[in-house]
Amino acid sequence: MNPFAFSGIPGIVFGPGEFRRVHRTIKEMGDHVLVVTGVSSLERSGKWDELGGGLEKESIRCSRVTLQGEPSPDFVDDTVSRFRDRGIQVVLAVGGGSVVDAGKAISAMLTQETSVYEFLEGIGNRTHNGERLPFVAVPTTSGTGSEATKNAVLSKVGPHGFKKSIRHDRFVPDVAVIDPELMLSCPPEVSAACGMDAFTQLLESYVSTQASPFTDAMAYSGISFLKDSLIPVCTTEGESIEKRAAMAYASLVSGMTLANAGLGVVHGLASPIGGLFSIPHGVVCGTLVGAETRVNIEKLRKQEQDGHTALTKYAKVGALVSGREFREEEVHPCCDLLIERIDGWIEALAIPRLSRYGIRASDLDTIARSAGNKNNPVALSVDEIKDLVSMRL
Amino acid sequence: MNPFAFSGIPGIVFGPGEFRRVHRTIKEMGDHVLVVTGVSSLERSGKWDELGGGLEKESIRCSRVTLQGEPSPDFVDDTVSRFRDRGIQVVLAVGGGSVVDAGKAISAMLTQETSVYEFLEGIGNRTHNGERLPFVAVPTTSGTGSEATKNAVLSKVGPHGFKKSIRHDRFVPDVAVIDPELMLSCPPEVSAACGMDAFTQLLESYVSTQASPFTDAMAYSGISFLKDSLIPVCTTEGESIEKRAAMAYASLVSGMTLANAGLGVVHGLASPIGGLFSIPHGVVCGTLVGAETRVNIEKLRKQEQDGHTALTKYAKVGALVSGREFREEEVHPCCDLLIERIDGWIEALAIPRLSRYGIRASDLDTIARSAGNKNNPVALSVDEIKDLVSMRL
Repeated sequence: MNPFAFSGIPGIVFGPGEFRRVHRTIKEMGDHVLVVTGVSSLERSGKWDELGGGLEKESIRCSRVTLQGEPSPDFVDDTVSRFRDRGIQVVLAVGGGSVVDAGKAISAMLTQETSVYEFLEGIGNRTHNGERLPFVAVPTTSGTGSEATKNAVLSKVGPHGFKKSIRHDRFVPDVAVIDPELMLSCPPEVSAACGMDAFTQLLESYVSTQASPFTDAMAYSGISFLKDSLIPVCTTEGESIEKRAAMAYASLVSGMTLANAGLGVVHGLASPIGGLFSIPHGVVCGTLVGAETRVNIEKLRKQEQDGHTALTKYAKVGALVSGREFREEEVHPCCDLLIERIDGWIEALAIPRLSRYGIRASDLDTIARSAGNKNNPVALSVDEIKDLVSMRL
Repeated sequence: MNPFAFSGIPGIVFGPGEFRRVHRTIKEMGDHVLVVTGVSSLERSGKWDELGGGLEKESIRCSRVTLQGEPSPDFVDDTVSRFRDRGIQVVLAVGGGSVVDAGKAISAMLTQETSVYEFLEGIGNRTHNGERLPFVAVPTTSGTGSEATKNAVLSKVGPHGFKKSIRHDRFVPDVAVIDPELMLSCPPEVSAACGMDAFTQLLESYVSTQASPFTDAMAYSGISFLKDSLIPVCTTEGESIEKRAAMAYASLVSGMTLANAGLGVVHGLASPIGGLFSIPHGVVCGTLVGAETRVNIEKLRKQEQDGHTALTKYAKVGALVSGREFREEEVHPCCDLLIERIDGWIEALAIPRLSRYGIRASDLDTIARSAGNKNNPVALSVDEIKDLVSMRL
């Protein structure tokens, strides 16, 4: 067993209807909450009024900020300067991964006097001291796992665009409230992109060079729930609480495993691609995870020493998602099953190709040169990364 | 998927040699540490000097208290009154489960003005507010998992004896440093009792009525590492870092699963038996877990509806510990394998019977009437509990 570190997970409250009790969780932390949400979905579902009623009952003052699209550093700075002197004691984020990331960054910056740019990895030069306001995350999509991670991704899109993180072990939310009822209205294409993001995170962290027995157990468990729910929630069973709960669990767990085992080359590509082009993060993951898995498995096979751990792990997932038992002597056929199954998901979910978002062959070089291998189980060269991306142009 | 809550885990640092860096972890938390240890084992191994050197290098002031046997409420109160006004900023416990529990209770009581009796479950009437000093746990045995739990067990032995907990979600240690090197010198009979305690905790929380997919994944992972290491660390491979690491991992994980899924009837018996008789907790668990498993499986079979979850889970563990694949149609033979395997472990490890500690047939009634079912997968009557205990008199 290799040495490992694990930086903690949020307190978890998991179950249908739990959002109706979130005010009690807030009350334990303070009397003035800043609620971060998306633009309108909470109103449409009546959940906003429900939350307001609960907060009022507990005499909790409520301020609100709404986010459109992905959070930029300027959005965080503007919000923090608006609310810094207003006595906010708790931050609550209710929304998709972007909203949760925004809330996380805001909770971390309301205790600081400077701009968030100074703490962004690869942009600023300062190290955050970890002090933040109490933070409660309530995801409404099943994908990013941000409710369990220690970083918030902030974006600027365009020629000099970037996606960079503000990160600290102490940024893991205090409490994640996972209520599958909130995901029932998530549209199919969003459920598909988010679900593929969660799957990519689980698979990449499972085969990561930094994986531990602990993250392995979680990642495998997450995939075992995701495998029979991903297609149903995007097609015929979007209103099944059982299926939504399984995806919410998989997503939650993917946040824990990525935060502690790291990710692979698809997430090394997500940052440059997402910075240069306006494309949902889940689509980048969903469209590339099949090609990544194929390329990784092929390269691992070439280097094969007997019983290569990552190859065996790919094979175990292949057996799991195909509903069959894994046998040591069937590593190769089980790896092939995995590749087939992922290709099948991509097709069934109609995950778009990259060209749909204006990405051309002439962009491959820039993208591949800015990409990182992260904790990919095998190191890929720039050319190999270009080949990988070109499969999904 | 049933609703569940998960109250958090410590930050984890896991690996051989990590204890040599514990002073850096302490330094992040404060400049004056109270170290809780057993009576002499740290000195014998040279680890005490090593720790002292590290703390000195970081200019951390060090106070110390030593514990003999299991911690009593009076020990906690005495220690707290000695150190309350001494400016302690961090508590570090280095030792077995008793020492870690003592450290946990002391870190929780140094912030309070009253006696720990007031907060003991079933004894006092007050609820702790969760405020405590930063607390780092370094286990030197692989058994109780206290480094990952939210309660500390305090004991009074004798006719009016008890074992009761002080408990709060926030009592989970800030950091657990798991260094398998510290376990190398643990004697065989202690390794055996502790290892059987860890196994009991993993198995009981796996089949618990409060189990969740999350605790299931952890418990199964813990057992998968324990199964091939329990006997070796107690017999021929006590000096194998690999085997000690596997047991340390299993123990750590057992703490997380018990804190979040609960335990079964053996732990419902451990409290009255341990309060009335002077017997190591691990021996109570180790000597009774086989009988418990047999009785539970028999009763579950009688009640059988097709596909009873707990029975299937017992069968999965049976297959796992026997090194074979689990098949749905082999629930009953796999359950039998589990019973056989546990009986085999008890024999191989020469886990003593209860009569060795002065427990007689005439005590059974008192014991069974004070026992709780906890989260046992099937409710046992007082007579069934008496039968269970009598198997190991």
